[in-house]
Amino acid sequence: MSSLEGKKVFVTGGAGFIGSNLAEELSSRGAFVTVLDNLSLGKLEFIEKFLDAPSFRFVKEDLLNLKELEKSMAGHDCVFHMAANSDISRGTRVTDVDLRQGTLATYNVLEAMRINGIKEIVFASSSAVYGEPKVVPTPEDYGPLFPISLYGASKLACEGLISAFCHNFGLRAWIFRFGNIAGVNGTHGVMYDFLRKLREDPSTLEVLGDGNQSKPYLHVSDCVGGMLHGYARASEEVNCFNLACEGGSSVSSIAEAVVTELGLNAVEIRYTGGRRGWTGDVPYVRLDPSKMASLGWKARYSSDTAVRLSVRELLRQVWVGYGQR
Amino acid sequence: MSSLEGKKVFVTGGAGFIGSNLAEELSSRGAFVTVLDNLSLGKLEFIEKFLDAPSFRFVKEDLLNLKELEKSMAGHDCVFHMAANSDISRGTRVTDVDLRQGTLATYNVLEAMRINGIKEIVFASSSAVYGEPKVVPTPEDYGPLFPISLYGASKLACEGLISAFCHNFGLRAWIFRFGNIAGVNGTHGVMYDFLRKLREDPSTLEVLGDGNQSKPYLHVSDCVGGMLHGYARASEEVNCFNLACEGGSSVSSIAEAVVTELGLNAVEIRYTGGRRGWTGDVPYVRLDPSKMASLGWKARYSSDTAVRLSVRELLRQVWVGYGQR
Repeated sequence: MSSLEGKKVFVTGGAGFIGSNLAEELSSRGAFVTVLDNLSLGKLEFIEKFLDAPSFRFVKEDLLNLKELEKSMAGHDCVFHMAANSDISRGTRVTDVDLRQGTLATYNVLEAMRINGIKEIVFASSSAVYGEPKVVPTPEDYGPLFPISLYGASKLACEGLISAFCHNFGLRAWIFRFGNIAGVNGTHGVMYDFLRKLREDPSTLEVLGDGNQSKPYLHVSDCVGGMLHGYARASEEVNCFNLACEGGSSVSSIAEAVVTELGLNAVEIRYTGGRRGWTGDVPYVRLDPSKMASLGWKARYSSDTAVRLSVRELLRQVWVGYGQR
Repeated sequence: MSSLEGKKVFVTGGAGFIGSNLAEELSSRGAFVTVLDNLSLGKLEFIEKFLDAPSFRFVKEDLLNLKELEKSMAGHDCVFHMAANSDISRGTRVTDVDLRQGTLATYNVLEAMRINGIKEIVFASSSAVYGEPKVVPTPEDYGPLFPISLYGASKLACEGLISAFCHNFGLRAWIFRFGNIAGVNGTHGVMYDFLRKLREDPSTLEVLGDGNQSKPYLHVSDCVGGMLHGYARASEEVNCFNLACEGGSSVSSIAEAVVTELGLNAVEIRYTGGRRGWTGDVPYVRLDPSKMASLGWKARYSSDTAVRLSVRELLRQVWVGYGQR
């Protein structure tokens, strides 16, 4: 079990949603943390409390700049690669956003690691690699892998690159396939959208799709804890895990949770209809968590509890806090 | 069953090994054929007999030039995307060759199709997407997919891109995962290498690995026939097939076949040792051909027969013909 105490950890996308939560946890466990982020989705607010800490460094840079990436990465022990375009539906409008910010960025991360002789990568992948699987809950060895979003295509491409770099250049990888993650520092996603919409118009809430889309929501603290648990305990060349709770929450139940938490009355919830929220949306996701369970890990919060908790946290941030700036 | 008569078919890599054989077959079935090739691996000799035919057009262009690709592709009914870096071991030395000539090139092909409203793509994928699978013969729904070469990683990335483009933009795809293909117009591979080595020194043959590597060899005529068979008969959104014969041939048996066909005596065969021929080589490949069999297709030639036939064909080309220029 590898300790994080004194370890030099490089976190891409470390000013973003999951990355900033991860950077905080890594710091609290005694790691030296370098966050690299282009601040396209990430926010300095999310990491400002660490900016002056001696064990913390922030680099504003884009992963597509290989030369600078290579320089900033020098001397680190491992890389947590969290950076990506997290707006899945955007890929339908801008068809190269995931190719560039996902696939090419990941190639650069791996190439910078190879050049610097850094051997460990922890990667934020996604259940989107499964496309619309015929087996649910879906296990990690499910095939074939035919993603229906360009985001999912990019995550699959990244997994393949990571696997090939491991084999060719002696790297070791921990790939975590996330379901939906929610909580503090969220910058996108269904709860965030609902809160923003209701701030603009507290009388009506438009919900994309028929509301029956249902997915596992994992609280970001569980996501970070799960990654560090798996990283410490799995030791294959390529370790791949679903990171999710059992079960899931429907979009309509999330809409109700948001309305309830806001204390609003008489909100008219309008469904745009259709089983998908958008092209590329996988309406029903369940991830088999038993491989992580075999390492002794289990989400602390159920999906519904994670939703409720996250709504409260986002409410404080989005409604009351920086979101109003 | 879609006829090729009068169909306007765009073939990327159509001056290359498989592409040139495909272009010839498409022409003989009455299709209008445009070949686009950058001639990095392809050769004009392979298609020179068609160059003046009214139903044939050749465009010398690189797939990384999206604007020109978009223009040349206009007006076609379907795309056979055969272009790729076919030298798998090169990816270990030049880590972005498969990313560029595979993944980015395929994105450009798909984007050019989307812009031009072309809805059908036939793609040359590879058993390399399976990495080193735990199930052999390997079926198409095998998972997880962790390729061990950057070539395999790129083919996996391309499959994901194709799948996502199909879902998002109404394309339909036929993905064929090839084992080893051999025969007329070969530009690389074990038989080609052995013939070249023995031309330089007919007394000694160096064989990479221990010679026990064993893979299914499909004659290129069977490869082309199989693709056209599957293209005509499968009609899912994403159709994915292994394209291989049953069984396989060992590298040592291929070495013996080459020596025998050359009529050489007393060749000393030296094995470099190790179970792989090179980093990223999958030493034992067997592909389950039953999905193609369910469409009524079967390779005409066994692996050993395909090897023997291909050695003779390559011998004529490499030893006697243009190879000596």
